[in-house]
Amino acid sequence: MSKSFSFHISANDGRARTGIVSTPKGDIRTPAFMPVGTAATVKAMMPENVRETGADILLGNTYHLMLRPGAERIHNLGGLHKFMNWDRPILTDSGGFQVMSLTDLRKLTEEGVKFRSHIDGSEYNLTPERSMEIQRLLGSDIVMCFDECPALPADRARINESMQLSMRWAQRSRDAFGDRPGYALFGIQQGGLEQDFREESAEALQKIGFDGYAIGGLAVGEGQDAMFGVLDYAPNQLPQDKPRYLMGVGKPDDIVGAVQRGVDMFDCVLPSRSGRTGQALTRFGAVNLRNARHKDDPRPLDENCTCPACSNYSRAYLHHVHKAGEIIGSMLLTWHNLHYYQELMQGLRDAIAAGELDAFVAQFHATRAQGDIDPI
Amino acid sequence: MSKSFSFHISANDGRARTGIVSTPKGDIRTPAFMPVGTAATVKAMMPENVRETGADILLGNTYHLMLRPGAERIHNLGGLHKFMNWDRPILTDSGGFQVMSLTDLRKLTEEGVKFRSHIDGSEYNLTPERSMEIQRLLGSDIVMCFDECPALPADRARINESMQLSMRWAQRSRDAFGDRPGYALFGIQQGGLEQDFREESAEALQKIGFDGYAIGGLAVGEGQDAMFGVLDYAPNQLPQDKPRYLMGVGKPDDIVGAVQRGVDMFDCVLPSRSGRTGQALTRFGAVNLRNARHKDDPRPLDENCTCPACSNYSRAYLHHVHKAGEIIGSMLLTWHNLHYYQELMQGLRDAIAAGELDAFVAQFHATRAQGDIDPI
Ligand SMILES: [Zn+2]
Ligand SMILES: [Zn+2]
Repeated sequence: MSKSFSFHISANDGRARTGIVSTPKGDIRTPAFMPVGTAATVKAMMPENVRETGADILLGNTYHLMLRPGAERIHNLGGLHKFMNWDRPILTDSGGFQVMSLTDLRKLTEEGVKFRSHIDGSEYNLTPERSMEIQRLLGSDIVMCFDECPALPADRARINESMQLSMRWAQRSRDAFGDRPGYALFGIQQGGLEQDFREESAEALQKIGFDGYAIGGLAVGEGQDAMFGVLDYAPNQLPQDKPRYLMGVGKPDDIVGAVQRGVDMFDCVLPSRSGRTGQALTRFGAVNLRNARHKDDPRPLDENCTCPACSNYSRAYLHHVHKAGEIIGSMLLTWHNLHYYQELMQGLRDAIAAGELDAFVAQFHATRAQGDIDPI
Repeated sequence: MSKSFSFHISANDGRARTGIVSTPKGDIRTPAFMPVGTAATVKAMMPENVRETGADILLGNTYHLMLRPGAERIHNLGGLHKFMNWDRPILTDSGGFQVMSLTDLRKLTEEGVKFRSHIDGSEYNLTPERSMEIQRLLGSDIVMCFDECPALPADRARINESMQLSMRWAQRSRDAFGDRPGYALFGIQQGGLEQDFREESAEALQKIGFDGYAIGGLAVGEGQDAMFGVLDYAPNQLPQDKPRYLMGVGKPDDIVGAVQRGVDMFDCVLPSRSGRTGQALTRFGAVNLRNARHKDDPRPLDENCTCPACSNYSRAYLHHVHKAGEIIGSMLLTWHNLHYYQELMQGLRDAIAAGELDAFVAQFHATRAQGDIDPI
């Protein structure tokens, strides 16, 4: 295993690429989907089973972990990997996005953000420097710059102001991160839906220099068309030879469209969150297991899926345990959904390597257009 | 594997015995602990992991399953084993006890019990005949007689009346069960804390003839001393050559004392329910992982335990996930608790086989008397 952080692209197909991000804790096959382990657990999953689905890397949330159990505590306990029993790479976000979306009474200044915990109301101060410190204490392998992102829609002046602040914070993040061999720092492009701001942001980040580049400020309610509109140009504004990470995306068809447009890394709570509410994500699209149509259905969720939910249980059972509020309902559907996502990523990687991405994407959409199997 | 149901005792130590209950679906090593799978799931566990803890048999609850998803539905889906992905023996209770404890608006007659579902208020009628039918539809390997059990304390007249009714229902259960090779019907001794009624009940059951005998009406709030008082004579009132099952018991020290008094089978929600509320059951007694003393403790729950919770996580992690309400907290502690129970049963079986039960029990109590390890 490499002692340093690197990215090697092995094949291109159109704007899409497949390759490997190498880290001292293991390789990340790209395009990669990172399951979200918010509070040091991918909800309803044992980490060894998350690995079995094909995940090479998990995402942890700085905001949640700094509040509970606390970054210093996790550091004293040997770091996040040991704490949560995951020895492969971990990427952590900077905390900025969740401070903005989850807290009240926050105060944004040039210095950073002051806010109160949504758990117990206690006061915190998050700055680029503190975010770097927290992510170091956690032992994160891929650290994200501390940034700010306005809710959309916002006017150009607000978007520009926010992007400029994020670029100043990117420099402070870079300075605070320092030189840490084997660990990576990713910059985050901002600029909303404005191509000129995106270009300016990309240039500012490259001037600072990062190990990878995220496309931030998307998947915040702008819709798929607007997002793809930005992705038609944004990845090309970023370096070809560094990983590109689209934060918080997304639905399976979002991911497929973004891979076609040159994105390498993704994270999203959708597969795990949906699993807990009875929604399965399948080749045929979304299937709501709580629907009464499944009550007497002896068939598996997806006869072609090899996950435990599909291998060992009927739709009737999945319906029953979700209606009854049984924990195994969350466990099985989360497992299926993560399995499906990783299978999709493997399919995308194989298709790019074979130069057959267009055919793969056509098949992907055709299967979804069929919809779920007919009721019995 | 045997095609019929049988019980073979391989060793005795005092009043305790160890042996094997053979069924067409697999052997049950006794003394046996049966995890409770109320609604077709041992809560927060995958069934293959329940098996890994050493469980030879699960218990299912007729009351819950008849209401949701329904016995006829489970039958049409291939039976409870297939439905819940457990191919080894299943014992089902008769539904009687839970109708009494979970429903309002119930009406008890000679015929049976009319009640309303606690889920949706719909009306049901449960009789010995219907209970036998439901347990047959579920595919239960060990079927329990439909009985009635008064809450304690109750006066002798009420206890006698109830016991007599249960004996008439035992005959009707036997008649309705019929001849089903490979499946077993267990009678249930009643009589509260009254030795003469227990004797009368035992004689009535043996006159009817069953494949095994349960000791019912205990663990309903009478306390361990009163329960052991009954167990000093009740098992000996039942046949030596048939399995004896103490329903709804219990805490680890309840089980140890009951095994010493000649009981072969147990079931209890305690290990799984405690696991969901942050209470670990260990060699050292109960440990509440929600307690702040564990917040910074890097040590495993029990360094000698080989379960995943103890092998891969710190007390600090278990504390964190229980405080944060994460599902993995329930998963890990349920796993540990079931693992501990099965390890205890294996210890009891080995000790009986070696003729060293007294020494084993002395060690069991000595370790508990030490209490949990000191805080760091
Ligand atoms: Zn599946
Ligand atoms: Zn353990």
